[in-house]
Amino acid sequence: MYELRKDPLLGRWVAVKKESRAPSDYNIPVEDYKENSCILCPGQESRTPPEITALRDGGSWSVRVFPNLDLVFHIEGELGRKGVGMYDKMNSIGANELIIESPYHNRRPEDIGVTQMTRVIQMYQDRITDLKRDTRIRHILVFKNSGRSAGAIYTHPHAEIVATPVIPKRIKDELDGAMQYYSYKERCVFCDMMKEEMKTGERVIFETRDFIAFCPFSPKFSFEFWILPKRHHCAFEEIKTSEIEDLGAMCTTVLKKIRQVLRDPPFNYVIHTAPYRITKQNMWHTLGEDYHWHIEIVPRLTGMSGFEWGSGFHILSTSPEDAAKYLREA
Amino acid sequence: MYELRKDPLLGRWVAVKKESRAPSDYNIPVEDYKENSCILCPGQESRTPPEITALRDGGSWSVRVFPNLDLVFHIEGELGRKGVGMYDKMNSIGANELIIESPYHNRRPEDIGVTQMTRVIQMYQDRITDLKRDTRIRHILVFKNSGRSAGAIYTHPHAEIVATPVIPKRIKDELDGAMQYYSYKERCVFCDMMKEEMKTGERVIFETRDFIAFCPFSPKFSFEFWILPKRHHCAFEEIKTSEIEDLGAMCTTVLKKIRQVLRDPPFNYVIHTAPYRITKQNMWHTLGEDYHWHIEIVPRLTGMSGFEWGSGFHILSTSPEDAAKYLREA
Repeated sequence: MYELRKDPLLGRWVAVKKESRAPSDYNIPVEDYKENSCILCPGQESRTPPEITALRDGGSWSVRVFPNLDLVFHIEGELGRKGVGMYDKMNSIGANELIIESPYHNRRPEDIGVTQMTRVIQMYQDRITDLKRDTRIRHILVFKNSGRSAGAIYTHPHAEIVATPVIPKRIKDELDGAMQYYSYKERCVFCDMMKEEMKTGERVIFETRDFIAFCPFSPKFSFEFWILPKRHHCAFEEIKTSEIEDLGAMCTTVLKKIRQVLRDPPFNYVIHTAPYRITKQNMWHTLGEDYHWHIEIVPRLTGMSGFEWGSGFHILSTSPEDAAKYLREA
Repeated sequence: MYELRKDPLLGRWVAVKKESRAPSDYNIPVEDYKENSCILCPGQESRTPPEITALRDGGSWSVRVFPNLDLVFHIEGELGRKGVGMYDKMNSIGANELIIESPYHNRRPEDIGVTQMTRVIQMYQDRITDLKRDTRIRHILVFKNSGRSAGAIYTHPHAEIVATPVIPKRIKDELDGAMQYYSYKERCVFCDMMKEEMKTGERVIFETRDFIAFCPFSPKFSFEFWILPKRHHCAFEEIKTSEIEDLGAMCTTVLKKIRQVLRDPPFNYVIHTAPYRITKQNMWHTLGEDYHWHIEIVPRLTGMSGFEWGSGFHILSTSPEDAAKYLREA
């Protein structure tokens, strides 16, 4: 038996199975992290595009950033918006960068240690802050593909940052949903969710001083979970130094939990942050109040069927309550 | 180099590579259609749930319909909408049915022949017409998963039909987009696209008397294409008998084309049709004018990365113009 649940943010419905599949019921692809010749490793710097920035201890780097080799978005050029018949197009202006999260090829993200994880988060913040200065850019997404079946090209621990001259559909939907909720309730939907989750506790995975990790009520994927800052704020890049350290500990813990429960699954995470600085003149004039930055993490356990991509209606074989229980207890 | 293109329907942007990947550049999973014991084969009828309907020649069936074995949506019961804290849920009322499209286990959909394809489409129509009588149902989706990596559980040719008590997100977005376009232009966006495609011809794959197949200007996936009826109509199930025959020939041709060009890829198709009968009192009061039923077909060539699922921004390595050229010339 299934039940239908509505996402308070996007208005999307999902079907959740009442008799959840256990982690052992998923056929999780085994990832091979060995590689003969990795261009992301120390000593191979001359094989990558020119470095944008790096954190260094003495001569050797601990985190390093350079443009992606297959550039979808270019920093040079004009936006060049134009119509072609009834359609609209523009140049692919923006940035994509690779953030190498550790000099050690075989170290998994959750094993780099809290100090290094903190440096990585600091680098996410620095890169967003820098890219935001470009007024052509409308949105910046930090994300990680871990494992080939999650879209990773390299096995060396890394994240990516993509700056786009338009606001992507999924982000726009989320902003619109948050704004609608705010208009109706005069409260932030994410703050409300967080309060609800803390009250019932059944979907909470882990809590630190500044952050909470929980499985959302109506996720798209089984074992999906979110990390929310307890302090309401729309922009990730305005995170405080003390919060970064706390987030480093949170990420290390929850990534260890999914490795243990789901046998080192391929996974993705994305940081969803407000596209703009808040100004009263902005088209999203309530953005500072109604949006709340957060991280969404999805272990890649199953593929998508024709029903799911054709309807946007997702079917979950493990309930968020059971997923949270497995992860909480790990 | 890439360029960005905007979907006139959903407002979604995609990035399209200017130097397209050829079909031979994709690592397409090889599907094995053999199976020792198939419950969808003739003679195994007692192993399936009770038949809902079938088309028969004498004693043997040519198309057969029964409820899916793993039922996500149940026909029995109340909708039971209720709030749980800040969230909303309801019972999973609706229907899922399997439509067995041929008695022959190893026959691929494109090889069943135009006569049989016509019977299959007739059955889609019959089932939608029947299910629509249930006033609890808000939307009906016919779709096909062909190949295990496209979500198929069975290798025997079949489609599925899912009736839901809510309008799925993707459908809602499409209806909203079509309505917005209509409000602005007082024309159907699909009719406009069709005219544009016929004028330039560069994305057209194949044309019959009543239908046209083309790659849309800004698809989500490489080699995605749509089949549109030339006659403006919002509801698939009101297709005319002569159009069904024509659509049977169209489907057979284009499915043969993707098999040839993409080496028998796993694929999905969905029929997008208006959720309601048109009434002036309806909340989508312009629905009859602004929506246009169609079929979307997606060969499953690549997976989705964290960027794509986290942003809804899709990256295509083959342009719709090149994809259409490969398919047109096959």
